[in-house]
Amino acid sequence: MELLARAEKSLIKAFDAASGQGAPPRLIAAMRDALFSGGARIRPQLCIAVAMACSEEEQALTDAAAAAIELMHCASLVHDDMPAFDNADTRRGRPSVHKAHGESLALLTGDALIVMAFDVLMNAPSKHPRRVLALLQNLSAAVGVPRGLVAGQAWECENTAELTTYQRAKTGSLFLAAVRAGALACGRDPDTWDELGDCLGLAYQAADDIRDVIADPQWLGKPGGQDALLGRPNVMHELGLTDGLAYFNQLMDRAVASVPACPCRELLQQLVRLESQRLIPAELIDHARHLPIWASSPERGSRHASLGMRSA
Amino acid sequence: MELLARAEKSLIKAFDAASGQGAPPRLIAAMRDALFSGGARIRPQLCIAVAMACSEEEQALTDAAAAAIELMHCASLVHDDMPAFDNADTRRGRPSVHKAHGESLALLTGDALIVMAFDVLMNAPSKHPRRVLALLQNLSAAVGVPRGLVAGQAWECENTAELTTYQRAKTGSLFLAAVRAGALACGRDPDTWDELGDCLGLAYQAADDIRDVIADPQWLGKPGGQDALLGRPNVMHELGLTDGLAYFNQLMDRAVASVPACPCRELLQQLVRLESQRLIPAELIDHARHLPIWASSPERGSRHASLGMRSA
Repeated sequence: MELLARAEKSLIKAFDAASGQGAPPRLIAAMRDALFSGGARIRPQLCIAVAMACSEEEQALTDAAAAAIELMHCASLVHDDMPAFDNADTRRGRPSVHKAHGESLALLTGDALIVMAFDVLMNAPSKHPRRVLALLQNLSAAVGVPRGLVAGQAWECENTAELTTYQRAKTGSLFLAAVRAGALACGRDPDTWDELGDCLGLAYQAADDIRDVIADPQWLGKPGGQDALLGRPNVMHELGLTDGLAYFNQLMDRAVASVPACPCRELLQQLVRLESQRLIPAELIDHARHLPIWASSPERGSRHASLGMRSA
Repeated sequence: MELLARAEKSLIKAFDAASGQGAPPRLIAAMRDALFSGGARIRPQLCIAVAMACSEEEQALTDAAAAAIELMHCASLVHDDMPAFDNADTRRGRPSVHKAHGESLALLTGDALIVMAFDVLMNAPSKHPRRVLALLQNLSAAVGVPRGLVAGQAWECENTAELTTYQRAKTGSLFLAAVRAGALACGRDPDTWDELGDCLGLAYQAADDIRDVIADPQWLGKPGGQDALLGRPNVMHELGLTDGLAYFNQLMDRAVASVPACPCRELLQQLVRLESQRLIPAELIDHARHLPIWASSPERGSRHASLGMRSA
């Protein structure tokens, strides 16, 4: 099965299993909107691809691990869009969950998806309970304190934050968890995949920063220029477009090179290259050549410096 | 060690383990406020008491299970107090988390505590990985969809809800999970403890309803009269004070009688009786005798009827 189709199917299965019997219908409707509104499913595809490269034995366990990662990602988007954070009215070209279903249900939708993420994993069929526990620990570390996704969001409420600490927590942690989960589901050493996860996480964040500045909102499916508006760090504000793109390309090259020796190494590398083109399509760069930012040269700062961020 | 002290120690240990290294300091401060502001710790004490009655072998596993239950309870209070729900300015006599730390951090505090609850359990030292997984599944069922705590909160966003479905999900599920966790941590059959958990959950909800009407806010440590204000069902609105108290006492009697045969049956029954007095102290009933509600006779409705609730 194609990677995207398998990732999608794993999510549908997880959602159907948890939501069927006697749940509050409005909550279920909001959760369905949060999950099935056209996400790229890049994290679960990554998890499945690594598991395939590790000669997986238990496909259902890989699928559960992949779904769990995407459930956490979707939960974070719902809470992140709320008025207390980005106050974004749209997501993927549609009304955000709190816009469509109200703030109360958006809050609960995020909570329910976090719980569902752990739930699908702990209930995955497997002959190896310690493998399941390792996958749960991998997921929990990626989303909790001190260095997971929630901590990353919380750095936005501090007056100062170290940029890479913030980006690794908010974006990188779930990419790292995705590749590690692929290995862990097969009982393999996850550490050899860390470089791939780390590079992809940083590259994805850089791409998100670049798109926030140069893409128009219709293409993005959500409001643009949010980082400047909310005083959040953005690689484009520090490096400018030319160096920002070079930084993104270097990260993707490092990601390709980092894929460890395995039966499907070349296929996996090809997948990373394709993802690179999806993240920053050639036509987006062509479009940006006509923007004033193409010529502007930002004031340089160290990417590792402590950066001012909005206060709580 | 005294039950309350052991429950408190298990929480401190869980919090210290997860929050120590490099987390965003404001988030940690908000989480600390959410956890350590004078909760009665009834759920973790219940879990530990049942484990003791089941001749526990792995105290650290019981402690982790107890802490996990209380972490979930505290997470639900933080999100429940927020403006999108109860909009409560105080909790346990102090500013609620969003009042003290802002809405963004309150949202993230709830998220982080949910993750921490699963985390403390999956990282608990145990020789029995399947026992740990069973404890995780027990916790997840108690908080997620379709019938856990989050579903219970979501019933408040529906136009109609079945009262016992709502109360079992919002309050009962965590009591049930607490007693079951005590048994599961010892590898025992949790089902024999269901009647105790169910009765205590319903009794606790009834006590909460009664206190919401008759106690003054200073004694409560939070605003009173919230159910009437928010259009939520309340046993007092249906049964009145005399029958409401009788209903509460019946539930506590059933809870006492339900304790299964075990080495410490009488001690555990004594504990339930003491809890009954803590929930509805004699002086609170004396105080209520002077209120107009004492004499009033409400219009009777079936406690199992479908009840109108506020819309989202």
